[in-house]
Amino acid sequence: MDLFYKNLTEAAAFAQLNEQKPVSLKEQFNSPAAPERIAAYQIPMAGGLTYSYAAMPVSDSILAALQALADEQQLIEKYRRLLDGDRINTGENRAVLHHLTRGKLGRDVVLDDEDKREFYLGELERIDDFSRKVHNGTITGSTGKQLTTVVQIGIGGSDLGPRALCLALDGHASAQPNGRKMDAHFISNVDPDDAAAVLSRIDFERTLFILVSKSGTTQETLTNRDLVLRGIAGSGIPGIDPARHMVAVTSKTSPLAASSDYLASFYIDDYIGGRYSSTSAVGGLVISLAYGSGTFKKLLSGAAAADEAALKPDITENAALADAMIGIYLRNISGRQTTAVLPYSQALSRFAAHLQQLDMESNGKRVNRSGKPIDYQTGPIIFGEPGTNGQHSFYQLLHQGTDIIPLQFIGFAASQYGKDAETGGSTSQEKLNANLTAQIVAFARGKDDEDPNKQFPGERPSSLIFGSRLTPEALGALLAHFENKVMFQGFCWNVNSFDQEGVQLGKVLTGQVLSGAGDGPLSAFFALLQQ
Amino acid sequence: MDLFYKNLTEAAAFAQLNEQKPVSLKEQFNSPAAPERIAAYQIPMAGGLTYSYAAMPVSDSILAALQALADEQQLIEKYRRLLDGDRINTGENRAVLHHLTRGKLGRDVVLDDEDKREFYLGELERIDDFSRKVHNGTITGSTGKQLTTVVQIGIGGSDLGPRALCLALDGHASAQPNGRKMDAHFISNVDPDDAAAVLSRIDFERTLFILVSKSGTTQETLTNRDLVLRGIAGSGIPGIDPARHMVAVTSKTSPLAASSDYLASFYIDDYIGGRYSSTSAVGGLVISLAYGSGTFKKLLSGAAAADEAALKPDITENAALADAMIGIYLRNISGRQTTAVLPYSQALSRFAAHLQQLDMESNGKRVNRSGKPIDYQTGPIIFGEPGTNGQHSFYQLLHQGTDIIPLQFIGFAASQYGKDAETGGSTSQEKLNANLTAQIVAFARGKDDEDPNKQFPGERPSSLIFGSRLTPEALGALLAHFENKVMFQGFCWNVNSFDQEGVQLGKVLTGQVLSGAGDGPLSAFFALLQQ
Repeated sequence: MDLFYKNLTEAAAFAQLNEQKPVSLKEQFNSPAAPERIAAYQIPMAGGLTYSYAAMPVSDSILAALQALADEQQLIEKYRRLLDGDRINTGENRAVLHHLTRGKLGRDVVLDDEDKREFYLGELERIDDFSRKVHNGTITGSTGKQLTTVVQIGIGGSDLGPRALCLALDGHASAQPNGRKMDAHFISNVDPDDAAAVLSRIDFERTLFILVSKSGTTQETLTNRDLVLRGIAGSGIPGIDPARHMVAVTSKTSPLAASSDYLASFYIDDYIGGRYSSTSAVGGLVISLAYGSGTFKKLLSGAAAADEAALKPDITENAALADAMIGIYLRNISGRQTTAVLPYSQALSRFAAHLQQLDMESNGKRVNRSGKPIDYQTGPIIFGEPGTNGQHSFYQLLHQGTDIIPLQFIGFAASQYGKDAETGGSTSQEKLNANLTAQIVAFARGKDDEDPNKQFPGERPSSLIFGSRLTPEALGALLAHFENKVMFQGFCWNVNSFDQEGVQLGKVLTGQVLSGAGDGPLSAFFALLQQ
Repeated sequence: MDLFYKNLTEAAAFAQLNEQKPVSLKEQFNSPAAPERIAAYQIPMAGGLTYSYAAMPVSDSILAALQALADEQQLIEKYRRLLDGDRINTGENRAVLHHLTRGKLGRDVVLDDEDKREFYLGELERIDDFSRKVHNGTITGSTGKQLTTVVQIGIGGSDLGPRALCLALDGHASAQPNGRKMDAHFISNVDPDDAAAVLSRIDFERTLFILVSKSGTTQETLTNRDLVLRGIAGSGIPGIDPARHMVAVTSKTSPLAASSDYLASFYIDDYIGGRYSSTSAVGGLVISLAYGSGTFKKLLSGAAAADEAALKPDITENAALADAMIGIYLRNISGRQTTAVLPYSQALSRFAAHLQQLDMESNGKRVNRSGKPIDYQTGPIIFGEPGTNGQHSFYQLLHQGTDIIPLQFIGFAASQYGKDAETGGSTSQEKLNANLTAQIVAFARGKDDEDPNKQFPGERPSSLIFGSRLTPEALGALLAHFENKVMFQGFCWNVNSFDQEGVQLGKVLTGQVLSGAGDGPLSAFFALLQQ
């Protein structure tokens, strides 16, 4: 099939979509047919999850229009080309291969004289071997003690995704015999207080540091490495050797690669963007050390299954495609600027921060994939906190504010720890899910009242991803679902979701400030901050 | 002075403001006069802080128009009435007294036959006495061991503010001799995994729990109390008495007050809203236990000074008023929907989550203070993460996305721990602030480039609050600054910033789900979540 790259507003199907009026959620949920709608508007996902879009303002005819748009913009075919190793990252003229870290759905991809699937699998096996040796004591700290703590030093994609996944796995692992292997900490911010706080809480003799930087030149990460090395040197521990407490995750061409300054190096490459690197060695090493490589492989299998499910051409059978296209409807037809991610799961407490990077860095673009300015809205703002906490915080605005914010709920039937109790006739988990249920309906249906202050206008759309329990497989499926959703939206908006030119200017100006070459406003603001 | 309550769009000054075109930040920062603008557009704040609005799209004439609007809407006079104990919370017909927890600027306020300032001071002294006794071992756990850990059980305002403040004080306290008195943890979510994770990490014999619920009926908090009590009972520790490991912070009329189930009770009242309660016993007890009552009193003194500074009528001398009014300009004239809070301070890592509640729950309203629907935008969406982390995440969209998001930066000259080192010619703190400087200028000025993908449109407004160091006084001033900003905006929008009717419907529907009385859509969604 020939591929065509059209801006969203050039697609004939977009003009047709524009004629489709949104469905009234109030009407739908006040109708006796509501349970049928809820039963029908569901799509099975990988990892035992299901995507429900019954509380989205769509109808069969809107879904058909979205299908036509997805077909015209060739979303599935573009995904296939990505899997086959095409240079989808047009800005940097690179292939986009994060799917290969967890499975193989396209052709063999050979780049740099290397079968890339074999390369990623090889690193996975090296991580498996290394983490087992740390756990069984074959590899110890330099003073002979068992390594019981792992600290990842990285920022952006080397921090947010791996950190969110570790938090999400911790309760699951704690409930398994010998499931938690090591304590995991993260140092990311160039603010020296970030490193100081972590270093004040650990025992250097029992700690392994993972230095993560693809280029090997990330300012924050190298600075934090130096603070850690000074911390070890200043600890006064007799005989401690910093090189035996640090490993690197980097590209083969980076200055960090295969250095004798580090105990070992694990590799990634330029075909895996930072925000898509959680299933590569960037996330794999810290997860395998903290929870075992078996747990990480289960996560990969959930992600691989989600990648495969995302190939289905029918929008009513492909959750990532449906989620993406309904998002396009809300953004470009309804004009919604923001989406709130609201997991009713404490384990997902930092998942929204990961999605914030994934989505906003990928699709926060104002030029199309050919570098031409576009005249329609692209990626939304993403924010969120876990429920029920958010209910006692910003939900007031969501219910009764002057803007409508689409909502992405996530929930599970069972908790991770399984330490629950019945009080007042229900368990905590039941209360949690009763709250989630109530919110979906309250947002959609609203409530009339004589007192306008007690009126709820309703018509607040939401979707729900639900499953029986947040297992490693479910987590992997959830991660890949959102990666694929963002990819589909990028294709539909005709932007390149895989570069990030918007971060460059700040780097250049920071260099000018530090070298003393900053001009008027740079010098003036920096002087304020040095008083 | 007689008070008038007008909707924003009824104010004559608003119509005049509407005629004021925003200043081009690109022009300002490309001009040789930029340093003069930066020097001039500053306002000293309490706690050694300064508010800079040089990178906001305002001019002297816009400021004059904002002053006229502030005067016409009688913001300072309404603040004075609040301090005098008027029933500013019209929805609930209550006075609004959180300022009294940290000073006295208005008349004596006697309510419920009690001088309220004396009442709050009395609780503060009781906290001082209690925390000293815990620290010096006069009060121990029930098995005779020193109490070394404090766990706050609360949600919403009983969680976000106190948690953000404890995180913000931890580095400061760690750098003082004997500054950290106890480890602080928080349990908030009704998800049982939240309590399970905290309980798996503590030693019950050395732990004091603080149960925080003004009404004494908060579902999440009572449920978590029961999980904690079961945890203690199930610990098998001989002789442990749960009642001697738990204190309550509640209102005098609540079922939790003066109960023999708790070691002690500390009191708040209905005149302090949850999101404004950090300077009452809700924040005071946990902060005093973790970092000493002296630290908490310093925080209060910073807040009190900020409250006093907020009385100045001149917008160019009153940072809270200026911040509020420039926010009104951005929201109601420029049409900006969202504000990002970006502290370049790891210690403020959860401060944005607190501001999210403070702002969105206060001003996310669609009726005015008399309960009449209004036809203009009110409170914005607030989100944020610390820099430099955010730079490697969502800043792409901020720089090059299709919407303009106003930014609120915060920065300090010195770190809290003081554990820094020079690498590559600069310290981490200098790198941190060079990044902050670079971002302000990059967002404002942008950059032209032949390649549209490397163009930065600029004209992204930001303000900066800066100071020498994040001390308890500075933190208190920062907290009160935002409380007062939100209050002024609420007055200007003519909404009641002190109720939260938008949380009620969810509570009612949750009760229906749990009692089995849920109708069609409630039953159908709840069934999905129980599979």
